[in-house]
Amino acid sequence: MFKEKLKKYTQNKNSLLCIGLDCDIRKIPPFLLEEDDPLFTFNREIIEATADLAIAFKPNIAFYETLGPTGWHLLEKTLEYIPGDCLVIADAKRGDIGNSARKYADLYFQSYSFDAITVSPYMGYDSIQPFIEYDDKATFVLCLTSNSGSHDFQYLNSGSEPLYLKIARKVSEWNLEKGNCGLVVGATHPENLSSIREVSPQLPLLIPGIGTQGGNLKLTVQYGTDEKGEGALINVSRSIIYASPDENFAEAARDKALEYKHAINAIRKVK
Amino acid sequence: MFKEKLKKYTQNKNSLLCIGLDCDIRKIPPFLLEEDDPLFTFNREIIEATADLAIAFKPNIAFYETLGPTGWHLLEKTLEYIPGDCLVIADAKRGDIGNSARKYADLYFQSYSFDAITVSPYMGYDSIQPFIEYDDKATFVLCLTSNSGSHDFQYLNSGSEPLYLKIARKVSEWNLEKGNCGLVVGATHPENLSSIREVSPQLPLLIPGIGTQGGNLKLTVQYGTDEKGEGALINVSRSIIYASPDENFAEAARDKALEYKHAINAIRKVK
Repeated sequence: MFKEKLKKYTQNKNSLLCIGLDCDIRKIPPFLLEEDDPLFTFNREIIEATADLAIAFKPNIAFYETLGPTGWHLLEKTLEYIPGDCLVIADAKRGDIGNSARKYADLYFQSYSFDAITVSPYMGYDSIQPFIEYDDKATFVLCLTSNSGSHDFQYLNSGSEPLYLKIARKVSEWNLEKGNCGLVVGATHPENLSSIREVSPQLPLLIPGIGTQGGNLKLTVQYGTDEKGEGALINVSRSIIYASPDENFAEAARDKALEYKHAINAIRKVK
Repeated sequence: MFKEKLKKYTQNKNSLLCIGLDCDIRKIPPFLLEEDDPLFTFNREIIEATADLAIAFKPNIAFYETLGPTGWHLLEKTLEYIPGDCLVIADAKRGDIGNSARKYADLYFQSYSFDAITVSPYMGYDSIQPFIEYDDKATFVLCLTSNSGSHDFQYLNSGSEPLYLKIARKVSEWNLEKGNCGLVVGATHPENLSSIREVSPQLPLLIPGIGTQGGNLKLTVQYGTDEKGEGALINVSRSIIYASPDENFAEAARDKALEYKHAINAIRKVK
């Protein structure tokens, strides 16, 4: 079960850190381009340098899919390299009618053995149910996202509350089935994290938006974690993996990951 | 430009028919399994048998992605086989923050040369803008989808109107930039098609849900087309491509496609 693993890794590693493996040929250290497989070498080095600090790795599928068939081979090789005491989350944001959703669920949960996936709520229950059916996996539904476009629809007043809270409530209902749902809530809206926690206290939160996107770490950890300072995965991608463009990039990534891990824990302690 | 092509093909072929290439190894005629590449043979035969009747083909990406790297090769080979007087629409329903959305846009519009894509609205403008930037392509935003889950959030009252109408209005605004947006509206909600047309008369509609999903063809064509009986792509997938499990499957698909084309045109005429 995902939730048990999350709890165990959080406690064993004393960490909430999730690292986004958004590898991009235009951003990796240029000296790696001489390698046979520069992106895999990059991912491997980042994973090796940080796996003991992170409870999860989260490849954003766009970065792999955009490479065509080789991108899926890269994803596969990368997944094989992630140690067993790290969760792997497919940041895929999929959402389609039932028979298509099932194809996606089978791919990510069965063929690629991801522990969790992100999905879009817009098409409703039957677009998400095939993922929920995998009871040992977790399905994180987009609730309040970290980007500027989140203001277009997610805050729309829907009855007595904004749409994102309606979604949090609905996902809490779906969670009653198997206890394996979660929410994606951007760190760029820390003031709304507490209302989401209130509406859905039992759901783990996947929180992107720290680092390059400028989210507020202090409020995010304070409002995003449960009473034990757990139940959240704080994701950092670019600020960790691209910490240095030089030969020391993996070391630099480790330093940055350690910095984030400690900064997060310091806030958890005073909570 | 997509809209000009759509108009031209609609008029030249006297058709609104879009055929969904949702190929599935468990559904294609069993005798094809003896072929070297059963799914490609299936797609090729379907395309050959129906390309003069359809203005567009729409592969649902889930059906290709689920096959791993070979699925992307299959997609590529299939696209190469579609004649130039048919539009190709990637039914991908993607939606992610700007830098990830750009990856998807580059893949589908540049690497794979699709004419159009479907995207999810939930993450708002910056998740869709990288697609809109391709001014000769079209971006169809999910508005009111054909599945049962559409009732979970899309009808939520957002101020004075349901969320799906808010989205139609917003996409109309985005359309002012390059005139290359469209909406996805399921044929299972024909009574709501007219209000969507009213709010966004200039947007072409991609309308799935006819056939297996049980949408009402008459009302769909009446309400979904513009005053000339154009500006809509009526998609049928399973009812056409899986019309027969026997050696005559391509012929049977052609017969079914012809039947739909005529049935749609008969309604356009009396409109």
